[in-house]
Amino acid sequence: MTVLEAIESRRAAKAFDPNHMLPEAHLREILRAGALAPTAFNIQHNRLLVVKNPEIRRKLRAVSWDQPQVTDASALIVVCADVQAWRKNPARYWRNAPEKVQDTLVDAIKAFYTDRDQAQRDEALRSSGMAAMNLMLAAKSLGYDSCPMDGFDFEAVAKIIHLPDDHLISMFVAIGRNTVPPKARSGFLEDHERFFEDGFPVSGGSQASIAICVSPSV
Amino acid sequence: MTVLEAIESRRAAKAFDPNHMLPEAHLREILRAGALAPTAFNIQHNRLLVVKNPEIRRKLRAVSWDQPQVTDASALIVVCADVQAWRKNPARYWRNAPEKVQDTLVDAIKAFYTDRDQAQRDEALRSSGMAAMNLMLAAKSLGYDSCPMDGFDFEAVAKIIHLPDDHLISMFVAIGRNTVPPKARSGFLEDHERFFEDGFPVSGGSQASIAICVSPSV
Repeated sequence: MTVLEAIESRRAAKAFDPNHMLPEAHLREILRAGALAPTAFNIQHNRLLVVKNPEIRRKLRAVSWDQPQVTDASALIVVCADVQAWRKNPARYWRNAPEKVQDTLVDAIKAFYTDRDQAQRDEALRSSGMAAMNLMLAAKSLGYDSCPMDGFDFEAVAKIIHLPDDHLISMFVAIGRNTVPPKARSGFLEDHERFFEDGFPVSGGSQASIAICVSPSV
Repeated sequence: MTVLEAIESRRAAKAFDPNHMLPEAHLREILRAGALAPTAFNIQHNRLLVVKNPEIRRKLRAVSWDQPQVTDASALIVVCADVQAWRKNPARYWRNAPEKVQDTLVDAIKAFYTDRDQAQRDEALRSSGMAAMNLMLAAKSLGYDSCPMDGFDFEAVAKIIHLPDDHLISMFVAIGRNTVPPKARSGFLEDHERFFEDGFPVSGGSQASIAICVSPSV
């Protein structure tokens, strides 16, 4: 399966086969794909928590609008981030680099994040999205379906998984075998609503936004 | 190239060939990949702005720590999001669904986002990360390199691209041909720092966190 085929055929699965087991080797390949997603300054703040215990899965489902994917998926990954990773011995993120490079980057990391709570949070969410996409595409390439989820009580989930105070939860990625074929896309945006060139339209101004014809038939 | 190969070989490019041109057909495939990333409730709030004008590229570089990728990449995509997309005729995101489903989802969208500014922003960042990852992997699969960037003056970039007040900028994805081979990974985290099972460690408690041996040699 090519990358473009995986991207095109990945759809949110809602009805996983609860009896399907994900081989451990495949879970490891999927997790490794998540770990390989980029992070700014290589701070690698994503934390991937796999919930295997059925009792914990049931507790999570109870605080996730009772969505069956939470218990029925073959793997449930809670994608989290250590929001304070940038300040936890940042030299280790560059330990293989020459000392001068390492020092420069550690200074840059501190300058970029210190006293910038919203930037720290934004970074965690942004990075977690990239990691989650890798998880889903790796799963697809190995023959599985996935469901990205953020419809749950974040505080309740944090308690169940003992989330450290300086971490956040971004989303769940549920992975398994879907038992029903995906429906047609429910309402794909027109190109001119999504793609822009050089600038957004300025009302009354001279700069036009040009839509790029990408998806004539979806 | 398989998905796992693309994920493994994607590295941040820092020295693009400024003379390389990206064929328009490939740019379209890459943008379409970005559009196919999932969004909660299918609100599709990502907005992908391609900067082709060299003068605008130069202006952006000037507010991006003078990083050469901004002007030298064959394509520069500013990944943005319409933070208020959830309230802009949300029925259109489900226009192909049965009317009852559509009504239920529109109600759910309003219930989820109304008066929740931080949740709206988190959602935009999370979704933009997923879209950006698709852009980078699609580029890789077509034979290009990429660089995810958020080292720039967000307010200055917003002015240059005429960002609407209710949108945000998440990051740049620069795409092109890298002219130098990637260095070895600078400091890949140990598994036990990144992967957890069932719960995070509780100090003094009984629940242990189990590291998953995923990346023995990186």
